[in-house]
Amino acid sequence: MVCNMPDEIIEMRGHLIDSMTLTRVMNKIIARGGSYEFLQFDVGLKDTDTSYLKLQVTADTTTLLDEILDDIHSEGAIEVSPKTVMIKPAPKDMTLPMDFYSTTNNETRVFYDDHWITAQRQMMDKCIVVQDKTAVCTAIRDVRKGDGIVCGENGVRVVVPHRPRKTSDTFTFMNSGSSSERPTLNIARRVAQDIYNTKKSHGRVILVGGPAIVHTGGSPSVAGMIRNGYINGILAGNALAVHDIESSIYGTSLGMRIKDATPASKGHRNHMDTVNEVFTYGSIYDMVDAGRLNKGIFYECVKHDTPFVLAGSIRDDGPLPDVVTDVVEAQKEYKKMLDGATLVLMISTMLHSIAVGNMLPSTVKIIAVDINQSTVTKLIDRGTWQAMGIVTDVGAFLPLVVQELENQESTV
Amino acid sequence: MVCNMPDEIIEMRGHLIDSMTLTRVMNKIIARGGSYEFLQFDVGLKDTDTSYLKLQVTADTTTLLDEILDDIHSEGAIEVSPKTVMIKPAPKDMTLPMDFYSTTNNETRVFYDDHWITAQRQMMDKCIVVQDKTAVCTAIRDVRKGDGIVCGENGVRVVVPHRPRKTSDTFTFMNSGSSSERPTLNIARRVAQDIYNTKKSHGRVILVGGPAIVHTGGSPSVAGMIRNGYINGILAGNALAVHDIESSIYGTSLGMRIKDATPASKGHRNHMDTVNEVFTYGSIYDMVDAGRLNKGIFYECVKHDTPFVLAGSIRDDGPLPDVVTDVVEAQKEYKKMLDGATLVLMISTMLHSIAVGNMLPSTVKIIAVDINQSTVTKLIDRGTWQAMGIVTDVGAFLPLVVQELENQESTV
Amino acid sequence: MVCNMPDEIIEMRGHLIDSMTLTRVMNKIIARGGSYEFLQFDVGLKDTDTSYLKLQVTADTTTLLDEILDDIHSEGAIEVSPKTVMIKPAPKDMTLPMDFYSTTNNETRVFYDDHWITAQRQMMDKCIVVQDKTAVCTAIRDVRKGDGIVCGENGVRVVVPHRPRKTSDTFTFMNSGSSSERPTLNIARRVAQDIYNTKKSHGRVILVGGPAIVHTGGSPSVAGMIRNGYINGILAGNALAVHDIESSIYGTSLGMRIKDATPASKGHRNHMDTVNEVFTYGSIYDMVDAGRLNKGIFYECVKHDTPFVLAGSIRDDGPLPDVVTDVVEAQKEYKKMLDGATLVLMISTMLHSIAVGNMLPSTVKIIAVDINQSTVTKLIDRGTWQAMGIVTDVGAFLPLVVQELENQESTV
Amino acid sequence: MVCNMPDEIIEMRGHLIDSMTLTRVMNKIIARGGSYEFLQFDVGLKDTDTSYLKLQVTADTTTLLDEILDDIHSEGAIEVSPKTVMIKPAPKDMTLPMDFYSTTNNETRVFYDDHWITAQRQMMDKCIVVQDKTAVCTAIRDVRKGDGIVCGENGVRVVVPHRPRKTSDTFTFMNSGSSSERPTLNIARRVAQDIYNTKKSHGRVILVGGPAIVHTGGSPSVAGMIRNGYINGILAGNALAVHDIESSIYGTSLGMRIKDATPASKGHRNHMDTVNEVFTYGSIYDMVDAGRLNKGIFYECVKHDTPFVLAGSIRDDGPLPDVVTDVVEAQKEYKKMLDGATLVLMISTMLHSIAVGNMLPSTVKIIAVDINQSTVTKLIDRGTWQAMGIVTDVGAFLPLVVQELENQESTV
Repeated sequence: MVCNMPDEIIEMRGHLIDSMTLTRVMNKIIARGGSYEFLQFDVGLKDTDTSYLKLQVTADTTTLLDEILDDIHSEGAIEVSPKTVMIKPAPKDMTLPMDFYSTTNNETRVFYDDHWITAQRQMMDKCIVVQDKTAVCTAIRDVRKGDGIVCGENGVRVVVPHRPRKTSDTFTFMNSGSSSERPTLNIARRVAQDIYNTKKSHGRVILVGGPAIVHTGGSPSVAGMIRNGYINGILAGNALAVHDIESSIYGTSLGMRIKDATPASKGHRNHMDTVNEVFTYGSIYDMVDAGRLNKGIFYECVKHDTPFVLAGSIRDDGPLPDVVTDVVEAQKEYKKMLDGATLVLMISTMLHSIAVGNMLPSTVKIIAVDINQSTVTKLIDRGTWQAMGIVTDVGAFLPLVVQELENQESTV
Repeated sequence: MVCNMPDEIIEMRGHLIDSMTLTRVMNKIIARGGSYEFLQFDVGLKDTDTSYLKLQVTADTTTLLDEILDDIHSEGAIEVSPKTVMIKPAPKDMTLPMDFYSTTNNETRVFYDDHWITAQRQMMDKCIVVQDKTAVCTAIRDVRKGDGIVCGENGVRVVVPHRPRKTSDTFTFMNSGSSSERPTLNIARRVAQDIYNTKKSHGRVILVGGPAIVHTGGSPSVAGMIRNGYINGILAGNALAVHDIESSIYGTSLGMRIKDATPASKGHRNHMDTVNEVFTYGSIYDMVDAGRLNKGIFYECVKHDTPFVLAGSIRDDGPLPDVVTDVVEAQKEYKKMLDGATLVLMISTMLHSIAVGNMLPSTVKIIAVDINQSTVTKLIDRGTWQAMGIVTDVGAFLPLVVQELENQESTV
Repeated sequence: MVCNMPDEIIEMRGHLIDSMTLTRVMNKIIARGGSYEFLQFDVGLKDTDTSYLKLQVTADTTTLLDEILDDIHSEGAIEVSPKTVMIKPAPKDMTLPMDFYSTTNNETRVFYDDHWITAQRQMMDKCIVVQDKTAVCTAIRDVRKGDGIVCGENGVRVVVPHRPRKTSDTFTFMNSGSSSERPTLNIARRVAQDIYNTKKSHGRVILVGGPAIVHTGGSPSVAGMIRNGYINGILAGNALAVHDIESSIYGTSLGMRIKDATPASKGHRNHMDTVNEVFTYGSIYDMVDAGRLNKGIFYECVKHDTPFVLAGSIRDDGPLPDVVTDVVEAQKEYKKMLDGATLVLMISTMLHSIAVGNMLPSTVKIIAVDINQSTVTKLIDRGTWQAMGIVTDVGAFLPLVVQELENQESTV
Repeated sequence: MVCNMPDEIIEMRGHLIDSMTLTRVMNKIIARGGSYEFLQFDVGLKDTDTSYLKLQVTADTTTLLDEILDDIHSEGAIEVSPKTVMIKPAPKDMTLPMDFYSTTNNETRVFYDDHWITAQRQMMDKCIVVQDKTAVCTAIRDVRKGDGIVCGENGVRVVVPHRPRKTSDTFTFMNSGSSSERPTLNIARRVAQDIYNTKKSHGRVILVGGPAIVHTGGSPSVAGMIRNGYINGILAGNALAVHDIESSIYGTSLGMRIKDATPASKGHRNHMDTVNEVFTYGSIYDMVDAGRLNKGIFYECVKHDTPFVLAGSIRDDGPLPDVVTDVVEAQKEYKKMLDGATLVLMISTMLHSIAVGNMLPSTVKIIAVDINQSTVTKLIDRGTWQAMGIVTDVGAFLPLVVQELENQESTV
């Protein structure tokens, strides 16, 4: 190694080893062809202590060094002397400076005006707009000409999440990944405990759901959870609403009678009749008011003031008058609903779950349930300890969760 | 069986046996608890002849009989004496009479003013608006107060498709279902022949595609097919465009260098940079005009006047300025593009493929390609001989198709 | 078409239309390039009547005609004048004459000595050995030099199964295919009814199971079904036994405590300890006798004289002393167990289920349950009305079935 | 924490951080409710240095402490003062002492007679037999009464593998997991380079394959690789052989003509004819000698003295005379074949691949290829840097690999 190769000294603090942060940092440096030398490493002596690391990173060229620093920056590595963040004005509406800082889903701080400011509404793949000593994660379509946009990585610090210590919830007992080969009844028990505890501690549970909830016969379970105050909001698409209402007013799903799973008379047209009925009444709310809709997920939402947002998609039948057909508008409504969420249940919908995943900071717990292994893997693969996947049949799993919720209640 | 049970005489014409129509009709009658008696059955003596059937259907109650008649109606069974179709006015905008006729994807005729009129723009799950001796399949949101809506089944005839006779194309050689256990090279050859012949016979090929085309390295293949005039239109979402343009201008996909599959420097932000670049230039078209985008799927679209429609979805990053963010508007644009389509290729996108499937009459050929068996099964399960599924890796399959297209050209 | 093209007249009897037999016959003739003419077609006038068809099949060459006749033979088409079956001696042990008749899973009769004899032990892909006026489906490894082997198709008649008429069981209510989008609770109810009724009518229920039963926490359900006399035999491999016994004696599965789904102390070695324990005691039976094994699937088998056969496989740990390590021997034991079976439950094992499927005549009911759609599709794709697939999570589904069985009992 | 709680001092050496070993050790201690204190941690200053750690582990009870020590033992943690390994005699044939040491797939050493001895034939889930200063991983069925069996963890050291440094092969460029969303052509290039380099460096490539190789048209590719000396041995089951030979002598697979993917005349019986033909000739070798088999995978094996082992399974048709029908015997043959293997290709077979995976030490490279994501995930989930998964269509992928191999050859 030649003496005059470019180098930089970075420092990191936190549970560096058990969060695997240090492992990833070292691997990233090596993978890009750089090298490192430990200058100082104060390992947390006990398991509750944090560690401190000072590391010298060296590379063949400044370009390469920049690449490495950029890469490990997202793991929380920062240059030793904080530099003031660079702010550039947006050149026009919905357009960013070329070197804008693109966010992760981890808590992010910018060093501005000699203070560290934490960005609000942390989301992935957004820019940060700084204004009046506040910093806000902002989607590109919401950027207006002249907005102050954070650029480059100087003065930006990412705080990586660490592994939760207590072992009382779902997220610590299933220590990694997802699999269909788990004891289902016990997993249902854990999920019920998580939901129960979240409600008890005045947390906010948001359910993201797809129509398979209805097809597999899971509607009454979700409706019951809403009625008992476990769900604080529903994010879905047109299909969940159409099929839930169809099952409520006609007792069918995909034209099959739910009570005995036989084909219903004229069942194939029931979902279109449902769409037409909602248009006839004006909206889902009007349909409940008129007494035409008197059970099911959306009935309970209306009755218990549980808000819902239905996002439109290209494959919608109708879509219902309640659907937000403009997807940019729907994204905004989704984000509002997710404000303050502490637990998000993703049930059988890849489209809406991925959308929601992109809107959540890494600190919000996610439980993703689907019968398809690869869907679950995709949803929970977000570099956080807080996402857990369950590969199961929703129609059999949800009743088990509800039963466990009742057990929780009765043991109090 | 009591003599005075309600009955009705229906008749059917066509390739009743080899299309399985008769089988389904008989099974539906039995499944609902009715019974039947053949009054006349003139089987097509030779394989090219059509058959004629007159059948008496009996049930315990008129309600049950109605249900049965409704059920077999969609198979092409019609009452012997044609009755005039019932037309009722739409009670208000975007609202239908309760007993509106809900369409199938098969060719449909209505007996009106003593003539059989064929419905235009045949699509599934729509109503039929009759006006000035024309009948048009219409989405509920396009219905205006007072429009004449077909109601009930009287005077409505469904023409079921029959099995194609010639064995020269993909659809007859793979006689059923889809499987990953097929000789891939030969299937690629057949698909190439279908595409080649469609172009030669001045047919219209529409490609519906998802971003996995880019991730698996299939972009150059699709770009080549556009350049050589095999594709007449592209239907997709924001993601295909973002990732195609990212791969064109940065050489990466999901942050990985496509040429050697290693992680690119700052690769994770390339897709957001891409979004920002398109906003900077104004649109994909402007980006091509400015010389910034000079290869890939969308470059070829612009250069060869191949139209595309990008439909927005709730999970979009950006979305790009070219995206139609309102899904009802996007559905209209999709339908326009599909007008006159003769072959539709569905490549690695369930969302857009299902949307397109619902917009197509049963007479349009569909080839659905995906690595996931259940996606393919869902896409081709539409009661027609014209849909074929291929379970394969798009990134390996598309180059084989392109190679076979070149072979076809060189043998002419 | 020239007059002197080769032709043959065949006849068919049965529920030709609703079984789709006639459809398949016509399609097969066309697909191979032949043509047909109906000479006589007496359609069953009522839905309970059978039909009779006399058909002239024509082809360009006698070779092609032979191919067609061979192809439609398996659908039940036979030449008008019964010819005596051709019998040739096996040239040596485990070797057949080149043109041996290869069986289907449908009931098969041979015209021999002026009588139609029904083959015993009907299985797929076997030969038929005729001896002393009996005909027996025989595996190639069981053939001995000189055995009389049926050759060619002359004098062989296949009886195709027809659609069951009554609608009381699982098989008629789910009229086709398999899907994860079904109301799970109701399907569990139907399956329970089938099992309950089979026991009540002194039928024979055989369960084919894989280790996911244990991993998903389904062992107690299966154990309960054995204890209550619903299962007449178990076919499995080494893994089901090892994991069931591990869960019984250590309370773990794959090293995880089943009762609370946390990793057990030294859990990773429990399955090898289990193997060692069984070897220590000598066999599963000895382990029960010694009081060491006192719950679970195999404990109940021993206690209630429910026989089981464990077939070895290349991936076995151990395998246990109870395992039949020679697969040819294991196949024979499996076949013995399946003798007289009326309902076969295939739970989460592709390997053993495919093996069993190949050993069953088409008249035996099969219910296949797996969380993987493509596994289920493969298992039930056997050209019979008697196979039904359920895509669900076994660990959540089995308790529902057991609960429904208890409901059945209590309502009697 | 009370002073007199039980504790133990362990030490570890190696690339503790970048191999994630330290992370896992800390997490395991916490997960079991223990705590730790760093006594000494000499981090490798540069990326090529190894680290040294001395850690005090404390727990509430000696039982718990034992559990923790056992758990972290498999990560390479050893007690500071090496104790002599405990050896107990096997109580009878095929039976181990209750506390036998159950192996991992990592290199393992035992401290015996004042020396560290490395165990031979390292495999997972076996015991270690010590005799005459040698230690050998041994399957339970091979243990004989009186054999010296390693018991407990004292004096046993596990050497964990570290991340490979060089970036020239497939295993470093795809740094984690498997996905269907990768650039297929480039992955094929990397795999070809690995195979090419392994041959050039006189390594040993073993292919484990299933019948989907044949069904998807991949046979010629594998045959070509054998002919060109890239494959040193084949491990498979009956099905690969039957279908490969069927495709060679009849040109069909599953009854479909491979050259044009149309149904062959009498195609359904071709696989049974194939079985009969091999029995007629006596064996695959005899069939090649007689000139009856003259192309395909097994023809090339015979012609180029490439050994193969066919393991029997319960679902076999036949099985062929060449199949080892006893699975315990087949396991022994498999292990012999794997001796000295440096690269193992697992192509489209879960059964045989899992079997092989259990027989391999963690130092052998594995490339697993399958169209099913969950199969691939299962195969490569073995706690090593050396396993890589590729989700693709084998029939399209293998020809690309062969083409790249040819490119490699021509560039030399």
